[in-house]
Amino acid sequence: MEHLLDPAEQPQDIPVRLTEQIAFIAEIDRLKTVLRLSPLLAADRRENDAEHSWHLAMMVLVLSEYANDPIDVGRTLKLVLTHDLVEIYAGDTNLFDEEGRKDKQAREQAAADRLFALLPDDQKQTFHSLWREFEEARTAEARFAQAMDRLQPLLLNFGNEGGTWRGHGVTESLIRRRTSHIANGSRRLWDFTEKLFALGVGRGWITRG
Amino acid sequence: MEHLLDPAEQPQDIPVRLTEQIAFIAEIDRLKTVLRLSPLLAADRRENDAEHSWHLAMMVLVLSEYANDPIDVGRTLKLVLTHDLVEIYAGDTNLFDEEGRKDKQAREQAAADRLFALLPDDQKQTFHSLWREFEEARTAEARFAQAMDRLQPLLLNFGNEGGTWRGHGVTESLIRRRTSHIANGSRRLWDFTEKLFALGVGRGWITRG
Repeated sequence: MEHLLDPAEQPQDIPVRLTEQIAFIAEIDRLKTVLRLSPLLAADRRENDAEHSWHLAMMVLVLSEYANDPIDVGRTLKLVLTHDLVEIYAGDTNLFDEEGRKDKQAREQAAADRLFALLPDDQKQTFHSLWREFEEARTAEARFAQAMDRLQPLLLNFGNEGGTWRGHGVTESLIRRRTSHIANGSRRLWDFTEKLFALGVGRGWITRG
Repeated sequence: MEHLLDPAEQPQDIPVRLTEQIAFIAEIDRLKTVLRLSPLLAADRRENDAEHSWHLAMMVLVLSEYANDPIDVGRTLKLVLTHDLVEIYAGDTNLFDEEGRKDKQAREQAAADRLFALLPDDQKQTFHSLWREFEEARTAEARFAQAMDRLQPLLLNFGNEGGTWRGHGVTESLIRRRTSHIANGSRRLWDFTEKLFALGVGRGWITRG
Protein backbone atom coordinates (compact mmCIF):
# COMPACT_ATOMS: atom_id res chain seq x y z
CA MET A 1 0.00 0.00 0.00
CA GLU A 2 2.78 2.38 0.90
CA HIS A 3 3.89 2.30 -2.72
CA LEU A 4 0.82 4.29 -3.66
CA LEU A 5 0.15 6.19 -0.45
CA ASP A 6 3.62 7.62 -0.29
CA PRO A 7 4.07 10.13 -3.12
CA ALA A 8 7.80 9.35 -3.06
CA GLU A 9 6.99 5.79 -4.15
CA GLN A 10 4.75 6.84 -7.04
CA PRO A 11 6.12 7.79 -10.45
CA GLN A 12 7.97 11.09 -10.02
CA ASP A 13 6.95 12.96 -13.11
CA ILE A 14 3.18 13.15 -12.62
CA PRO A 15 1.22 16.15 -11.27
CA VAL A 16 0.88 16.45 -7.48
CA ARG A 17 -2.90 16.57 -7.86
CA LEU A 18 -3.02 13.11 -9.45
CA THR A 19 -0.56 11.77 -6.87
CA GLU A 20 -2.92 12.86 -4.09
CA GLN A 21 -5.95 11.37 -5.83
CA ILE A 22 -4.20 8.02 -6.31
CA ALA A 23 -3.12 8.01 -2.65
CA PHE A 24 -6.77 8.55 -1.61
CA ILE A 25 -7.95 5.75 -3.90
CA ALA A 26 -5.36 3.43 -2.34
CA GLU A 27 -6.25 4.42 1.24
CA ILE A 28 -9.98 3.79 0.85
CA ASP A 29 -9.24 0.17 -0.06
CA ARG A 30 -9.43 -0.20 3.74
CA LEU A 31 -13.23 0.14 3.63
CA LYS A 32 -13.20 -3.48 2.38
CA THR A 33 -11.83 -4.53 5.79
CA VAL A 34 -14.37 -2.73 8.01
CA LEU A 35 -16.76 -5.46 9.14
CA ARG A 36 -20.43 -4.87 9.88
CA LEU A 37 -22.68 -6.93 12.12
CA SER A 38 -24.89 -8.16 9.25
CA PRO A 39 -24.38 -11.59 7.69
CA LEU A 40 -24.30 -11.99 3.90
CA LEU A 41 -27.19 -13.77 2.24
CA ALA A 42 -24.87 -15.67 -0.09
CA ALA A 43 -22.14 -16.88 2.28
CA ASP A 44 -21.58 -17.61 5.95
CA ARG A 45 -19.63 -14.51 6.92
CA ARG A 46 -20.20 -10.89 7.90
CA GLU A 47 -20.53 -8.12 5.36
CA ASN A 48 -17.94 -5.37 4.99
CA ASP A 49 -18.57 -1.68 4.38
CA ALA A 50 -17.48 -1.67 0.72
CA GLU A 51 -19.87 -4.51 -0.12
CA HIS A 52 -22.62 -2.78 1.86
CA SER A 53 -22.07 0.52 0.03
CA TRP A 54 -22.23 -1.22 -3.35
CA HIS A 55 -25.43 -3.02 -2.34
CA LEU A 56 -27.05 0.27 -1.28
CA ALA A 57 -26.15 1.79 -4.65
CA MET A 58 -27.86 -1.12 -6.41
CA MET A 59 -30.93 -0.64 -4.22
CA VAL A 60 -31.04 3.03 -5.21
CA LEU A 61 -31.02 1.97 -8.88
CA VAL A 62 -33.82 -0.55 -8.40
CA LEU A 63 -36.02 1.18 -5.79
CA SER A 64 -35.78 4.93 -6.53
CA GLU A 65 -39.41 4.96 -7.75
CA TYR A 66 -40.54 4.52 -4.13
CA ALA A 67 -38.96 7.76 -2.87
CA ASN A 68 -41.48 10.10 -1.19
CA ASP A 69 -40.20 12.97 -3.32
CA PRO A 70 -38.55 12.81 -6.75
CA ILE A 71 -34.80 12.25 -6.34
CA ASP A 72 -31.70 12.78 -8.45
CA VAL A 73 -30.52 9.19 -8.73
CA GLY A 74 -26.93 10.15 -9.61
CA ARG A 75 -26.52 12.29 -6.50
CA THR A 76 -28.19 9.64 -4.32
CA LEU A 77 -25.64 7.13 -5.64
CA LYS A 78 -22.81 9.45 -4.57
CA LEU A 79 -24.31 9.70 -1.06
CA VAL A 80 -24.58 5.96 -0.47
CA LEU A 81 -21.17 5.23 -2.04
CA THR A 82 -19.36 7.66 0.27
CA HIS A 83 -21.43 7.68 3.50
CA ASP A 84 -19.41 5.00 5.31
CA LEU A 85 -15.90 6.14 4.31
CA VAL A 86 -15.38 7.71 7.75
CA GLU A 87 -15.63 4.23 9.27
CA ILE A 88 -12.17 3.48 7.87
CA TYR A 89 -10.84 5.32 10.93
CA ALA A 90 -13.94 5.50 13.17
CA GLY A 91 -15.06 1.86 12.81
CA ASP A 92 -18.62 0.61 12.38
CA THR A 93 -21.04 1.55 15.16
CA ASN A 94 -24.01 -0.78 14.96
CA LEU A 95 -27.57 0.26 15.67
CA PHE A 96 -27.73 -1.52 19.01
CA ASP A 97 -24.37 -0.32 20.40
CA GLU A 98 -25.60 2.26 22.95
CA GLU A 99 -22.09 2.96 24.25
CA GLY A 100 -20.49 3.45 20.84
CA ARG A 101 -23.29 5.75 19.73
CA LYS A 102 -22.43 8.33 22.39
CA ASP A 103 -19.23 9.61 20.77
CA LYS A 104 -19.99 8.39 17.24
CA GLN A 105 -20.39 11.89 15.84
CA ALA A 106 -17.09 13.21 17.21
CA ARG A 107 -15.17 10.12 16.08
CA GLU A 108 -16.63 10.32 12.60
CA GLN A 109 -15.97 14.04 12.23
CA ALA A 110 -12.31 13.49 13.12
CA ALA A 111 -12.17 10.61 10.64
CA ALA A 112 -13.66 12.73 7.86
CA ASP A 113 -11.14 15.51 8.51
CA ARG A 114 -8.25 13.05 8.35
CA LEU A 115 -9.41 11.02 5.35
CA PHE A 116 -10.62 13.78 3.04
CA ALA A 117 -7.43 15.78 3.72
CA LEU A 118 -5.67 13.31 1.43
CA LEU A 119 -7.54 14.84 -1.52
CA PRO A 120 -6.88 18.09 -3.40
CA ASP A 121 -8.75 21.00 -1.73
CA ASP A 122 -11.72 21.19 -4.09
CA GLN A 123 -12.42 17.46 -3.81
CA LYS A 124 -11.89 17.53 -0.05
CA GLN A 125 -14.79 20.01 0.12
CA THR A 126 -16.92 17.87 -2.22
CA PHE A 127 -16.50 14.74 -0.10
CA HIS A 128 -17.10 16.61 3.18
CA SER A 129 -20.23 18.05 1.67
CA LEU A 130 -21.55 14.65 0.47
CA TRP A 131 -20.93 13.14 3.89
CA ARG A 132 -22.66 16.02 5.70
CA GLU A 133 -25.60 15.89 3.30
CA PHE A 134 -26.13 12.21 4.09
CA GLU A 135 -25.82 12.73 7.85
CA GLU A 136 -28.11 15.77 8.03
CA ALA A 137 -30.88 14.16 5.95
CA ARG A 138 -32.25 17.53 4.87
CA THR A 139 -32.55 16.66 1.16
CA ALA A 140 -34.87 14.12 -0.44
CA GLU A 141 -31.77 12.32 -1.77
CA ALA A 142 -30.23 12.01 1.71
CA ARG A 143 -33.49 10.81 3.24
CA PHE A 144 -33.82 8.11 0.58
CA ALA A 145 -30.14 7.17 0.98
CA GLN A 146 -30.66 6.78 4.74
CA ALA A 147 -33.74 4.65 4.09
CA MET A 148 -31.64 2.28 1.95
CA ASP A 149 -28.98 2.18 4.68
CA ARG A 150 -31.61 1.04 7.20
CA LEU A 151 -33.52 -1.31 4.92
CA GLN A 152 -30.54 -3.26 3.55
CA PRO A 153 -29.45 -4.95 6.81
CA LEU A 154 -33.10 -5.79 7.52
CA LEU A 155 -33.17 -7.73 4.24
CA LEU A 156 -29.94 -9.53 5.13
CA ASN A 157 -31.25 -10.45 8.57
CA PHE A 158 -34.65 -11.54 7.26
CA GLY A 159 -32.98 -13.68 4.58
CA ASN A 160 -30.83 -15.27 7.30
CA GLU A 161 -33.77 -16.44 9.44
CA GLY A 162 -33.39 -13.53 11.79
CA GLY A 163 -29.60 -13.13 11.51
CA THR A 164 -28.29 -10.71 14.10
CA TRP A 165 -31.77 -10.03 15.49
CA ARG A 166 -31.60 -13.40 17.19
CA GLY A 167 -29.20 -13.67 20.08
CA HIS A 168 -29.09 -9.91 20.54
CA GLY A 169 -32.50 -9.96 22.24
CA VAL A 170 -33.81 -7.44 19.74
CA THR A 171 -37.39 -6.44 20.45
CA GLU A 172 -39.88 -5.23 17.92
CA SER A 173 -40.14 -1.81 19.55
CA LEU A 174 -36.35 -1.27 19.58
CA ILE A 175 -35.88 -2.27 15.97
CA ARG A 176 -38.85 -0.13 14.90
CA ARG A 177 -37.40 2.87 16.75
CA ARG A 178 -34.01 2.38 15.09
CA THR A 179 -35.39 2.01 11.58
CA SER A 180 -38.58 4.05 11.46
CA HIS A 181 -36.98 6.90 9.55
CA ILE A 182 -37.12 4.63 6.51
CA ALA A 183 -40.55 6.30 6.28
CA ASN A 184 -38.90 9.72 5.86
CA GLY A 185 -37.35 8.48 2.62
CA SER A 186 -40.09 6.14 1.49
CA ARG A 187 -43.44 5.50 3.14
CA ARG A 188 -44.09 2.60 0.74
CA LEU A 189 -40.85 0.84 1.69
CA TRP A 190 -41.65 1.45 5.37
CA ASP A 191 -44.96 -0.34 4.79
CA PHE A 192 -42.98 -3.24 3.36
CA THR A 193 -40.59 -3.13 6.34
CA GLU A 194 -43.43 -3.30 8.83
CA LYS A 195 -44.67 -6.43 7.12
CA LEU A 196 -41.17 -7.97 7.34
CA PHE A 197 -41.17 -7.24 11.09
CA ALA A 198 -44.58 -8.86 11.50
CA LEU A 199 -43.30 -11.99 9.75
CA GLY A 200 -40.10 -11.88 11.84
CA VAL A 201 -42.09 -11.72 15.06
CA GLY A 202 -44.39 -14.49 13.87
CA ARG A 203 -41.40 -16.74 13.22
CA GLY A 204 -39.78 -15.94 16.55
CA TRP A 205 -36.79 -14.09 15.08
CA ILE A 206 -37.72 -10.80 16.72
CA THR A 207 -38.89 -10.63 20.34
CA ARG A 208 -42.46 -9.35 20.64
CA GLY A 209 -42.84 -6.13 22.62
CA MET B 1 -31.75 -16.24 0.98
CA GLU B 2 -34.75 -18.29 -0.18
CA HIS B 3 -36.92 -16.25 2.18
CA LEU B 4 -36.52 -13.25 -0.09
CA LEU B 5 -35.95 -14.94 -3.43
CA ASP B 6 -39.10 -16.99 -3.21
CA PRO B 7 -42.12 -14.69 -3.49
CA ALA B 8 -44.08 -17.20 -1.42
CA GLU B 9 -41.75 -16.49 1.51
CA GLN B 10 -42.09 -12.72 1.29
CA PRO B 11 -45.00 -10.81 2.85
CA GLN B 12 -48.11 -11.73 0.86
CA ASP B 13 -49.84 -8.40 0.62
CA ILE B 14 -47.27 -6.38 -1.31
CA PRO B 15 -47.29 -5.64 -5.05
CA VAL B 16 -45.73 -8.25 -7.35
CA ARG B 17 -43.43 -5.57 -8.77
CA LEU B 18 -41.82 -4.90 -5.38
CA THR B 19 -41.59 -8.65 -4.68
CA GLU B 20 -39.57 -9.07 -7.88
CA GLN B 21 -37.32 -6.12 -7.09
CA ILE B 22 -36.58 -7.44 -3.60
CA ALA B 23 -35.82 -10.90 -5.00
CA PHE B 24 -33.31 -9.32 -7.42
CA ILE B 25 -31.69 -7.32 -4.60
CA ALA B 26 -31.34 -10.54 -2.59
CA GLU B 27 -29.93 -12.53 -5.52
CA ILE B 28 -27.19 -10.01 -6.35
CA ASP B 29 -25.79 -10.43 -2.84
CA ARG B 30 -23.90 -13.27 -4.56
CA LEU B 31 -21.62 -10.74 -6.30
CA LYS B 32 -19.88 -10.46 -2.91
CA THR B 33 -18.75 -14.07 -3.28
CA VAL B 34 -17.29 -13.86 -6.82
CA LEU B 35 -13.53 -13.71 -6.29
CA ARG B 36 -11.15 -11.86 -8.59
CA LEU B 37 -7.46 -12.52 -9.08
CA SER B 38 -6.37 -9.17 -7.58
CA PRO B 39 -5.18 -8.92 -3.97
CA LEU B 40 -6.53 -6.16 -1.71
CA LEU B 41 -4.16 -3.40 -0.67
CA ALA B 42 -5.46 -3.42 2.92
CA ALA B 43 -5.57 -7.16 3.71
CA ASP B 44 -4.00 -10.42 2.61
CA ARG B 45 -6.87 -11.83 0.56
CA ARG B 46 -8.35 -11.57 -2.92
CA GLU B 47 -10.89 -8.94 -3.85
CA ASN B 48 -14.47 -9.80 -4.71
CA ASP B 49 -16.61 -8.29 -7.45
CA ALA B 50 -18.82 -6.19 -5.16
CA GLU B 51 -15.79 -4.55 -3.54
CA HIS B 52 -14.24 -4.04 -6.97
CA SER B 53 -17.42 -2.41 -8.33
CA TRP B 54 -17.59 -0.04 -5.35
CA HIS B 55 -13.92 0.88 -5.80
CA LEU B 56 -14.47 1.66 -9.49
CA ALA B 57 -17.37 3.93 -8.56
CA MET B 58 -15.12 5.82 -6.15
CA MET B 59 -12.48 6.15 -8.88
CA VAL B 60 -15.12 7.63 -11.20
CA LEU B 61 -15.95 10.22 -8.52
CA VAL B 62 -12.30 11.15 -7.99
CA LEU B 63 -10.87 10.86 -11.51
CA SER B 64 -13.67 11.93 -13.90
CA GLU B 65 -11.77 15.14 -14.76
CA TYR B 66 -9.27 13.01 -16.73
CA ALA B 67 -11.84 11.62 -19.20
CA ASN B 68 -10.94 12.34 -22.85
CA ASP B 69 -14.45 13.67 -23.42
CA PRO B 70 -16.85 15.22 -20.91
CA ILE B 71 -18.83 12.46 -19.16
CA ASP B 72 -22.09 12.23 -17.25
CA VAL B 73 -20.75 11.06 -13.88
CA GLY B 74 -24.09 9.65 -12.71
CA ARG B 75 -24.43 7.41 -15.76
CA THR B 76 -20.80 6.33 -15.53
CA LEU B 77 -21.46 5.28 -11.92
CA LYS B 78 -24.36 3.12 -13.09
CA LEU B 79 -22.10 1.43 -15.67
CA VAL B 80 -19.34 0.50 -13.23
CA LEU B 81 -21.79 -0.58 -10.50
CA THR B 82 -23.58 -3.03 -12.79
CA HIS B 83 -20.91 -4.18 -15.28
CA ASP B 84 -19.84 -7.30 -13.35
CA LEU B 85 -23.31 -8.54 -12.30
CA VAL B 86 -23.25 -11.18 -15.03
CA GLU B 87 -20.28 -12.81 -13.26
CA ILE B 88 -22.71 -14.03 -10.57
CA TYR B 89 -23.51 -16.88 -12.98
CA ALA B 90 -20.65 -16.60 -15.53
CA GLY B 91 -17.77 -16.26 -13.05
CA ASP B 92 -14.77 -13.94 -13.32
CA THR B 93 -12.62 -14.38 -16.42
CA ASN B 94 -9.26 -12.80 -15.78
CA LEU B 95 -7.24 -10.93 -18.38
CA PHE B 96 -4.69 -13.70 -18.78
CA ASP B 97 -7.12 -16.62 -19.05
CA GLU B 98 -6.89 -17.35 -22.80
CA GLU B 99 -9.16 -20.40 -22.58
CA GLY B 100 -11.89 -18.70 -20.56
CA ARG B 101 -11.89 -15.69 -22.86
CA LYS B 102 -13.03 -17.80 -25.82
CA ASP B 103 -16.62 -18.33 -24.66
CA LYS B 104 -16.78 -15.39 -22.25
CA GLN B 105 -19.25 -13.46 -24.36
CA ALA B 106 -21.73 -16.34 -24.73
CA ARG B 107 -21.53 -17.24 -21.01
CA GLU B 108 -22.10 -13.63 -19.98
CA GLN B 109 -25.01 -13.11 -22.36
CA ALA B 110 -26.75 -16.18 -20.92
CA ALA B 111 -26.05 -14.89 -17.41
CA ALA B 112 -27.51 -11.47 -18.21
CA ASP B 113 -30.65 -13.06 -19.64
CA ARG B 114 -31.10 -15.18 -16.51
CA LEU B 115 -30.29 -12.51 -13.91
CA PHE B 116 -32.12 -9.53 -15.33
CA ALA B 117 -35.22 -11.69 -15.89
CA LEU B 118 -35.80 -11.48 -12.13
CA LEU B 119 -36.69 -7.79 -12.56
CA PRO B 120 -39.93 -6.21 -13.81
CA ASP B 121 -39.82 -5.80 -17.61
CA ASP B 122 -38.90 -2.10 -17.77
CA GLN B 123 -35.99 -2.55 -15.35
CA LYS B 124 -34.88 -5.72 -17.12
CA GLN B 125 -34.43 -3.59 -20.25
CA THR B 126 -32.60 -0.86 -18.31
CA PHE B 127 -30.07 -3.29 -16.82
CA HIS B 128 -29.52 -5.08 -20.14
CA SER B 129 -28.93 -1.72 -21.75
CA LEU B 130 -26.41 -0.57 -19.10
CA TRP B 131 -24.50 -3.83 -19.43
CA ARG B 132 -24.42 -3.62 -23.24
CA GLU B 133 -23.34 0.03 -23.12
CA PHE B 134 -20.36 -0.90 -20.94
CA GLU B 135 -19.39 -3.87 -23.10
CA GLU B 136 -19.68 -2.04 -26.44
CA ALA B 137 -17.67 1.00 -25.30
CA ARG B 138 -19.29 3.26 -27.85
CA THR B 139 -20.06 6.12 -25.43
CA ALA B 140 -17.57 8.36 -23.62
CA GLU B 141 -19.03 7.10 -20.32
CA ALA B 142 -18.47 3.45 -21.22
CA ARG B 143 -14.91 4.11 -22.41
CA PHE B 144 -14.09 5.86 -19.15
CA ALA B 145 -15.79 3.09 -17.14
CA GLN B 146 -13.68 0.48 -18.97
CA ALA B 147 -10.56 2.54 -18.27
CA MET B 148 -11.34 2.43 -14.52
CA ASP B 149 -11.95 -1.32 -14.76
CA ARG B 150 -8.47 -1.79 -16.24
CA LEU B 151 -6.63 0.72 -14.07
CA GLN B 152 -7.96 -0.44 -10.68
CA PRO B 153 -6.32 -3.91 -10.61
CA LEU B 154 -3.06 -2.31 -11.81
CA LEU B 155 -3.12 -0.11 -8.70
CA LEU B 156 -3.80 -3.13 -6.47
CA ASN B 157 -0.96 -5.09 -8.05
CA PHE B 158 1.46 -2.17 -7.95
CA GLY B 159 0.62 -1.55 -4.27
CA ASN B 160 1.27 -5.25 -3.58
CA GLU B 161 4.82 -5.22 -4.97
CA GLY B 162 3.71 -6.73 -8.23
CA GLY B 163 0.83 -8.82 -6.87
CA THR B 164 -0.53 -11.19 -9.49
CA TRP B 165 1.93 -9.96 -12.14
CA ARG B 166 4.63 -11.96 -10.37
CA GLY B 167 4.35 -15.70 -10.70
CA HIS B 168 2.12 -15.47 -13.73
CA GLY B 169 5.11 -14.64 -15.97
CA VAL B 170 3.42 -11.46 -17.09
CA THR B 171 5.44 -9.57 -19.68
CA GLU B 172 5.34 -5.86 -20.30
CA SER B 173 4.02 -6.34 -23.83
CA LEU B 174 1.18 -8.66 -22.72
CA ILE B 175 0.03 -6.38 -19.94
CA ARG B 176 0.23 -3.32 -22.22
CA ARG B 177 -1.87 -5.11 -24.84
CA ARG B 178 -4.50 -6.06 -22.25
CA THR B 179 -4.77 -2.58 -20.74
CA SER B 180 -3.96 -0.13 -23.52
CA HIS B 181 -7.59 0.79 -24.07
CA ILE B 182 -7.31 2.80 -20.86
CA ALA B 183 -6.17 5.42 -23.39
CA ASN B 184 -9.58 5.30 -25.12
CA GLY B 185 -11.14 6.58 -21.90
CA SER B 186 -8.30 8.75 -20.65
CA ARG B 187 -4.99 9.48 -22.35
CA ARG B 188 -3.72 11.20 -19.20
CA LEU B 189 -4.39 8.13 -17.02
CA TRP B 190 -2.76 5.94 -19.67
CA ASP B 191 0.35 8.15 -19.37
CA PHE B 192 0.25 7.47 -15.63
CA THR B 193 -0.22 3.74 -16.26
CA GLU B 194 2.80 3.59 -18.56
CA LYS B 195 4.89 5.12 -15.81
CA LEU B 196 3.63 2.49 -13.33
CA PHE B 197 4.68 -0.22 -15.80
CA ALA B 198 8.13 1.31 -16.16
CA LEU B 199 8.53 1.28 -12.37
CA GLY B 200 7.19 -2.29 -12.22
CA VAL B 201 9.71 -3.46 -14.80
CA GLY B 202 12.51 -1.59 -13.02
CA ARG B 203 11.65 -3.37 -9.76
CA GLY B 204 11.45 -6.79 -11.42
CA TRP B 205 7.68 -7.22 -10.87
CA ILE B 206 6.90 -7.31 -14.58
CA THR B 207 9.05 -9.28 -17.04
CA ARG B 208 10.73 -7.05 -19.62
CA GLY B 209 9.80 -7.73 -23.24
